[in-house]
Amino acid sequence: MPTEPYTLILLRHGNSEWNQKNLFTGWVDVRLSEQGVGEAKRAGQLLAESGLLPDVLYTSRLTRAIQTADLALAEADRLWIDVKRSWRLNERHYGALQGKDKAQTLEEYGPEQFKVWRRSFDVPPPPIADDDQWSQFGDPRYADLGDDLPRTECLKDVIERMLPYWHSDITGDLAAGRTVLVTAHGNSLRALVKHLDGISDDDIAELNIPTGIPLVYRLDESFSPIAPGEYLDPEAAAAGAAAVAAQGSGSK
Amino acid sequence: MPTEPYTLILLRHGNSEWNQKNLFTGWVDVRLSEQGVGEAKRAGQLLAESGLLPDVLYTSRLTRAIQTADLALAEADRLWIDVKRSWRLNERHYGALQGKDKAQTLEEYGPEQFKVWRRSFDVPPPPIADDDQWSQFGDPRYADLGDDLPRTECLKDVIERMLPYWHSDITGDLAAGRTVLVTAHGNSLRALVKHLDGISDDDIAELNIPTGIPLVYRLDESFSPIAPGEYLDPEAAAAGAAAVAAQGSGSK
Repeated sequence: MPTEPYTLILLRHGNSEWNQKNLFTGWVDVRLSEQGVGEAKRAGQLLAESGLLPDVLYTSRLTRAIQTADLALAEADRLWIDVKRSWRLNERHYGALQGKDKAQTLEEYGPEQFKVWRRSFDVPPPPIADDDQWSQFGDPRYADLGDDLPRTECLKDVIERMLPYWHSDITGDLAAGRTVLVTAHGNSLRALVKHLDGISDDDIAELNIPTGIPLVYRLDESFSPIAPGEYLDPEAAAAGAAAVAAQGSGSK
Repeated sequence: MPTEPYTLILLRHGNSEWNQKNLFTGWVDVRLSEQGVGEAKRAGQLLAESGLLPDVLYTSRLTRAIQTADLALAEADRLWIDVKRSWRLNERHYGALQGKDKAQTLEEYGPEQFKVWRRSFDVPPPPIADDDQWSQFGDPRYADLGDDLPRTECLKDVIERMLPYWHSDITGDLAAGRTVLVTAHGNSLRALVKHLDGISDDDIAELNIPTGIPLVYRLDESFSPIAPGEYLDPEAAAAGAAAVAAQGSGSK
């Protein structure tokens, strides 16, 4: 029987191969690094220890989020739950920056431009060319998107393609009383947290979600938080968020 | 656009830890053995080489089928497709035999009784007690089944709980033109092949599906095969089926 409060668990994937190489990733489909694999397993242990066991999993269509979810659920003995995937949970498309070295980009364009691309609410990087090797144009994974396929995105764009999915699909599982796990990315999760917590367009620039630590929301019948979201390992979360914030020369 | 023929791919999970120990498994949730992991990856390579790329995955709720699918899809770069899971695709419930040594059971009950339990169409083994350590009674994974939770099953029982799911869910994805991969078990797949090929209750005893080799059906608009199902590696499939048939002292 559905009972409130509803339980929503957000999980940002861990360190990827391109995090380690310091490249802009976006929709490029890189795998988790060894460190990221460890983070995902640790997230599953936190879920198991907390007794917060998901009934349904949502992921993006990107391997690093799928891997994170599968590793975490295996640790929590919940690999058997239903799974839904959507491009609407994908990381922000990083436009022409995808595949570029972050340090070189910083040097080439300067810290001001770099920060705009990294944290501006509504200024996207230049669009990627369809024939760029890091474009997703022609990728069978996104064949169903048609003209919706992004060539670049700012956070505002992410919100506009993510929120319809929240309303159309995720809230339905919550309303049915299911504990929902959403395993996704720094920016698709920032978009969701902005909506849940009513964060302003200006303040969202300062919000950093650490990797690999489940963030738990209890929601009322209109899917509003009845209390602030809580990380299952608050100390590690604070350290992780600080580390993300300190990436003046980096970005996810 | 949906186009016929529709494409259905069946894949039986590979060798498990209990296959190696020669124990009756049924609904007990064992993992793949190292050999089984290799079989699953090989299945994914066969899919990739054939160009038969699934758009949606169906699995049972048992880890060995889920692992098989995830390993195969990772090989074929299709980890991102939608996933649906159902207990209706689970292996046959082996009743009180679950967890028992096959060789010991053969010795204790004799070859005739052993064969009946292994291959009879409509005689199930004795039911498992709810307090048996290998019972699924009380397992949160099956909490939604209520009184449908099996305590034992014959192949006829498997057909009766599997076929409704074929009609209610799987055929819908086929009708939408999606290439469907079903990753499941010896007996749930025998049940489906019996239906597709119109095999009699007597003849199904002789049908053996090898592990780890995709079996491809092309179906017409009423979901009937337009030709016999084809294994992607026919030679390996013939050898594998013979190996299963030769398990006079074994059974999955």
